Amino acid sequence: MTPQKATNIHWHEGNVTREERRSNMGQNGATVWMTGLSGSGKSTVAVAFEQVLMQRGFHAYRLDGDNIRHGLNKNLGFSAEDRTENIRRIGEVAKLFADAGLIAVTSFISPYTADRDLARKVHEDAGLPFFEVYVHCPLEEAEKRDPKGLYKKARAGEIKGFTGIDDPYEEPTKAELVLKTAEMSIEQSVEALLDLLESKGIIKA
Amino acid sequence: MTPQKATNIHWHEGNVTREERRSNMGQNGATVWMTGLSGSGKSTVAVAFEQVLMQRGFHAYRLDGDNIRHGLNKNLGFSAEDRTENIRRIGEVAKLFADAGLIAVTSFISPYTADRDLARKVHEDAGLPFFEVYVHCPLEEAEKRDPKGLYKKARAGEIKGFTGIDDPYEEPTKAELVLKTAEMSIEQSVEALLDLLESKGIIKA
Repeated sequence: MTPQKATNIHWHEGNVTREERRSNMGQNGATVWMTGLSGSGKSTVAVAFEQVLMQRGFHAYRLDGDNIRHGLNKNLGFSAEDRTENIRRIGEVAKLFADAGLIAVTSFISPYTADRDLARKVHEDAGLPFFEVYVHCPLEEAEKRDPKGLYKKARAGEIKGFTGIDDPYEEPTKAELVLKTAEMSIEQSVEALLDLLESKGIIKA
Repeated sequence: MTPQKATNIHWHEGNVTREERRSNMGQNGATVWMTGLSGSGKSTVAVAFEQVLMQRGFHAYRLDGDNIRHGLNKNLGFSAEDRTENIRRIGEVAKLFADAGLIAVTSFISPYTADRDLARKVHEDAGLPFFEVYVHCPLEEAEKRDPKGLYKKARAGEIKGFTGIDDPYEEPTKAELVLKTAEMSIEQSVEALLDLLESKGIIKA
């Protein structure tokens, strides 16, 4: 009667299937890609959205400047090439989170259509849902908010290539959702995001 | 009596706390970093480990060549500099998964001590558990297995800088666990990994 510890270990050849992940997580993996001007409210809405998802027992993770710029992308600067690589890597990491079954919520200005389209493509190629959310706010309003004082610096010429001032923001033309943060409360924006995920079959209310 | 949809949305200032994530996930986030020669059995063990964790209701995600080299790190080659950057990025992404509350399981040769130590450091700096697992197998055995035919090519000079042939594998000296795959079954390796996570308070049996 030798005790065999490992007799209750069972596994099959090949990777964990997406269906196994869905069942394990109680949701489908997806990426919610928030884009908009500095000061438009992306991060505020993303923080609230992540919290509410988790309160309801869903699994989400937010990618933003805080956890990306000082870590994965700390070897990137602000040249055109580095900005594109910055968004490329974020798109790839969001894809991994979505593949893991989580709801990845990205919160970056991501001003160029080509960069956002590439993030969408890597998801589509992997069969993973990608939702572009345009966090819309008139430039005047974003500049009035100026939570980080960046517009002031850009106007003073202390920051070059600032989106909306001396670098373009290319507005999304095929966003799955537009959040007009000058007119909507944070709660209303979160509600709209939850509705989006429900309508797309990512979560069940 | 106007219906107000958004009245059940509640959120607080600041980020989701680690305690909220722990509660949400039913486990602590952590990274299990598997290192070892090509053919040592890293991926086989990692695949089985991930499956068993998920069967038991835990949340894990495996990072390996398949989902990293063709995505996030597809712009990296095999120069010394690119190899280091390859492992650096993997360490940073594993850290994000651990921060999200998942058990990240990485499966890369990662032959250099300095690169593995950096991955450990970024976890420690973020207050996240990191477990180095040396998947040990004698070179002769790994070369005999040669599941991808790479040793044969390296011996023929068709691949340069191949770990164990003409590039060093720096053995871990502070691994939290050593799995001797020439002597242990896959089930025994998985059991040892589960024991490690339990003993460190990451999961509860």
